[in-house]
Amino acid sequence: MSAASVFDREPADTREAIIFATFDAIQKHGYAGLSIQRIADESELSKSTFYHHFDGKDDILLSFAAFLLENFETVFQRKSTGDPEQDLKIFLRLVVGESDAVTEDGDLEAMLGTYLEVGTQAIRDEQFREEFTRTGDKWVENLASLIQEGIDQGVFRDVDPEATAAFLLTMTDGATFEKMTRTDEPMPFLIDQILTYVDDHIVATE
Amino acid sequence: MSAASVFDREPADTREAIIFATFDAIQKHGYAGLSIQRIADESELSKSTFYHHFDGKDDILLSFAAFLLENFETVFQRKSTGDPEQDLKIFLRLVVGESDAVTEDGDLEAMLGTYLEVGTQAIRDEQFREEFTRTGDKWVENLASLIQEGIDQGVFRDVDPEATAAFLLTMTDGATFEKMTRTDEPMPFLIDQILTYVDDHIVATE
Repeated sequence: MSAASVFDREPADTREAIIFATFDAIQKHGYAGLSIQRIADESELSKSTFYHHFDGKDDILLSFAAFLLENFETVFQRKSTGDPEQDLKIFLRLVVGESDAVTEDGDLEAMLGTYLEVGTQAIRDEQFREEFTRTGDKWVENLASLIQEGIDQGVFRDVDPEATAAFLLTMTDGATFEKMTRTDEPMPFLIDQILTYVDDHIVATE
Repeated sequence: MSAASVFDREPADTREAIIFATFDAIQKHGYAGLSIQRIADESELSKSTFYHHFDGKDDILLSFAAFLLENFETVFQRKSTGDPEQDLKIFLRLVVGESDAVTEDGDLEAMLGTYLEVGTQAIRDEQFREEFTRTGDKWVENLASLIQEGIDQGVFRDVDPEATAAFLLTMTDGATFEKMTRTDEPMPFLIDQILTYVDDHIVATE
């Protein structure tokens, strides 16, 4: 599935065209097989245009993590209902690419796989680890503000928004890892467990 | 940190010597930089000895996932107290390489990183996905039998052992991913949340 269909639009500018082409090249050749030449092959851009916008392969992969976060925010804004409980559950289902929630937004599975692969580069590369920490904190911040809204409206319990968000995102990380590395379909079960956790620990009892 | 110190022993046979050398080569050159030559360089074995035991790089990485599981079982047996609640908590702390629990067993952080990197190969490789599903099921089975023991003794609630084990292991996967890809130390917080989950959902109330 191409980047344009996964992200449900054409790239906005040259920089984004390169990010889309990188996504397509990873789908075709795998993360280990990625090269500037192969990225250029997936776009109508020359290698020199590439180097005008990015320092190299690592630079573009670092931008990719930030791009995925921004893209998620756009998709989530479109789905948001204004009801904190609904929105929290939509957020969690979207972040794991759970099929019902993403039907109109293409198959996010490929995107999730790429996110995980970029993430593993953070294991041994300080610069990637810094970028992953930065975007990870932004994910937590977004989810925490959603939880805070529910607390303010009295529909959520008085939990610690940041801590709860961090733990929920750890669960979704784990669920994504399971989904991407297993032959069966663990996600319906796992998302069900995560949503049950939300009901048991976050949603206020009448 | 070398394989011999992480696994707290010398390799038992040639096959294991190759697995240890693979671990050392990954620590030195990264997962992407792994080659048979570099594995041979980390051992006193020739490339031909290697090919006598393994079909190639992928074959050894597939064996690696199974080796990590077996090694974990050995470490866990040594730590087991016979008390289901204690054992469940030790299991969970060990599986995320939480420092207090693994002091005598060397720094498991490098092992966890390698496990994640082998895991990402399962995203795009059917054979790896099958092996990861197989070893993943064994992890669930081990943890489920621990939970069943607690239920039988009346110290755990009447939860579904398999489902609970699968969800707990998803949490630890996520926690490991966070730990390995962030610049700060999220684990003390995350393991605390996981153990709180155990208290709230699994341990029987008096």
